[in-house]
Amino acid sequence: MEKDFKVLKLDHIGIAVGSIEEQLRVWQNLPGLKMIETKEIPDQKIKVAIFNLGNLHIELIEPLTATSSVHNFIKKRGEGLHHLCFEVDNIDTALALLKDRGVRLVDEKPRTGAWAKKIAFIHPKSMGGVLVELSEH
Amino acid sequence: MEKDFKVLKLDHIGIAVGSIEEQLRVWQNLPGLKMIETKEIPDQKIKVAIFNLGNLHIELIEPLTATSSVHNFIKKRGEGLHHLCFEVDNIDTALALLKDRGVRLVDEKPRTGAWAKKIAFIHPKSMGGVLVELSEH
Repeated sequence: MEKDFKVLKLDHIGIAVGSIEEQLRVWQNLPGLKMIETKEIPDQKIKVAIFNLGNLHIELIEPLTATSSVHNFIKKRGEGLHHLCFEVDNIDTALALLKDRGVRLVDEKPRTGAWAKKIAFIHPKSMGGVLVELSEH
Repeated sequence: MEKDFKVLKLDHIGIAVGSIEEQLRVWQNLPGLKMIETKEIPDQKIKVAIFNLGNLHIELIEPLTATSSVHNFIKKRGEGLHHLCFEVDNIDTALALLKDRGVRLVDEKPRTGAWAKKIAFIHPKSMGGVLVELSEH
């Protein structure tokens, strides 16, 4: 029998912003969203601000350089919703199964995330235009 | 003392799709997301498919006519992430306070939602490019 995987929850929503400093004020208009951390991730050429809402995070993502993929995203589509990240129970099984089913993957093997143990992106062309990240904690 | 409001949770994520039928297959690649209902909302000129994930929903939204705002969204930006809906404890207070703070509202007064008692949209120009819906249940 083929091994399967399961989506456990929505881990976070990523929002592309030109400036975290400017957008912090905007998101603080929604009381209940708690800003818990800002962090630079030089690896991915981004800076992020994390808001907590129950057991899910909202991440504002600011590109640190013009070579960041988030910079390109904003140039093409403007600021706004960027990606959804789902926590799965087994990311290796997930990637193998999705590849078998013809789903186009950005990362065929998981890489180390800033918070999660392992992360990988699925190509938006295979998910109805939505950039989907999988994570395993 | 000014009355305040609170965001209780992320209620759902809306994804604009050209065809629910085509995209159902895509999202069924993620086991754990349970499709629970499809429904036409002639009022808003849309058809929606609802997936459950824990206590949050993911809605695929298909425009029923070329005059639907979702049709225009897809024409301009392509299929993909469309809006976030946050449940609040008091939508009337929320709209009044946000208006006071200069936030641009699509709906200054709440209207009746398909599922929620009351809903209202905030303009993406005031939310860093993100179309935000508030709902009260």
